[in-house]
Amino acid sequence: MYEGPVQDLIDELGRLPGIGPKSAQRIAFHLLTVEVADLTRLQAALQRVKDEVKFCTECGNVAEGDLCRICSDPRRDAGSICVVEEPKDVAAVERTREFRGRYHVLGGAISPIDGIGPDQLRIAPLLRRIAEPGVHEVILATDPNLEGEATATYLVRLLRTFPDLAVTRLASGLPVGGDLEYADEVTLGRAFSGRRAVDA
Amino acid sequence: MYEGPVQDLIDELGRLPGIGPKSAQRIAFHLLTVEVADLTRLQAALQRVKDEVKFCTECGNVAEGDLCRICSDPRRDAGSICVVEEPKDVAAVERTREFRGRYHVLGGAISPIDGIGPDQLRIAPLLRRIAEPGVHEVILATDPNLEGEATATYLVRLLRTFPDLAVTRLASGLPVGGDLEYADEVTLGRAFSGRRAVDA
Repeated sequence: MYEGPVQDLIDELGRLPGIGPKSAQRIAFHLLTVEVADLTRLQAALQRVKDEVKFCTECGNVAEGDLCRICSDPRRDAGSICVVEEPKDVAAVERTREFRGRYHVLGGAISPIDGIGPDQLRIAPLLRRIAEPGVHEVILATDPNLEGEATATYLVRLLRTFPDLAVTRLASGLPVGGDLEYADEVTLGRAFSGRRAVDA
Repeated sequence: MYEGPVQDLIDELGRLPGIGPKSAQRIAFHLLTVEVADLTRLQAALQRVKDEVKFCTECGNVAEGDLCRICSDPRRDAGSICVVEEPKDVAAVERTREFRGRYHVLGGAISPIDGIGPDQLRIAPLLRRIAEPGVHEVILATDPNLEGEATATYLVRLLRTFPDLAVTRLASGLPVGGDLEYADEVTLGRAFSGRRAVDA
């Protein structure tokens, strides 16, 4: 449809998550008409991510050095580990300001259909961390979907072998600000089965 | 929120049209975890657009050489010029396969609020093209919004000075596949005032 390099850029942009063909075209034409300096800044940002972003050797989160910001912070409780699927989930939990422990990023979830089994995830390093003295709590914060649940169930079974380790899973229930009428039946069912006593 | 280079990339992606903060974050984390080859391909596509894409000296459309694909095609009728705002509008009209003439890309529309007056648009080159012998038709295909209408009105006034030039504007009316009930009143009003006799 378009001249070579423009079409190539549209194709590359269309591979990004959440970018359909129309958006890819819109972004490409935007990039054609912006100042060269803007395009150069985007290129530089991509290059820096390629060159400088590493993954934390301890937890698997994104990091600039060997350890991520959280693992290198002595104020964070090393005895409590929150297990998540991806680095972006670390950011999501951090935004809640509810958790002062450390993280462990699995790098995905068990998904036989995508060929991802437990061996493709960072589970062995997790077990090594838990075996260290002082770790008393693991919070399983995988996604509340089929793959996330399967991963959590698998981990629960593994973690049973550690005595005195408190293993918890994030609560399922109605999203705050949501509408009961529009909740799907699984979510509403979970909200029921997980109902809590109300302090008078 | 994130380590330096990741946040920089999120910021840069967030500047693109139609990419909100959530999408920017999602794309950045996707780019963190893709193969290096994928990231390199995106970078190369950006670089090629920067290096190779020029604008047609005749019509202002994107081009790889001096002339775009359409202006260098002798089968396209040089006597009929379709005036559009942006290169992406050329692509939109081309997709209809209704037009076999050539284009003229203004590079925007008159918008006093954005500081864009007639002098910022490629109107002088349009007048030079129309003054050439053989040009018999100009189709104004600016956007059907305030700025596009203002631009078309401005051009109509200029083009009156050319005798024997047929100047038309794209029809306004109900979108095909749409629902009369949901049409806004301006569109429905235009559809009424532009109603056509039906061939029995």
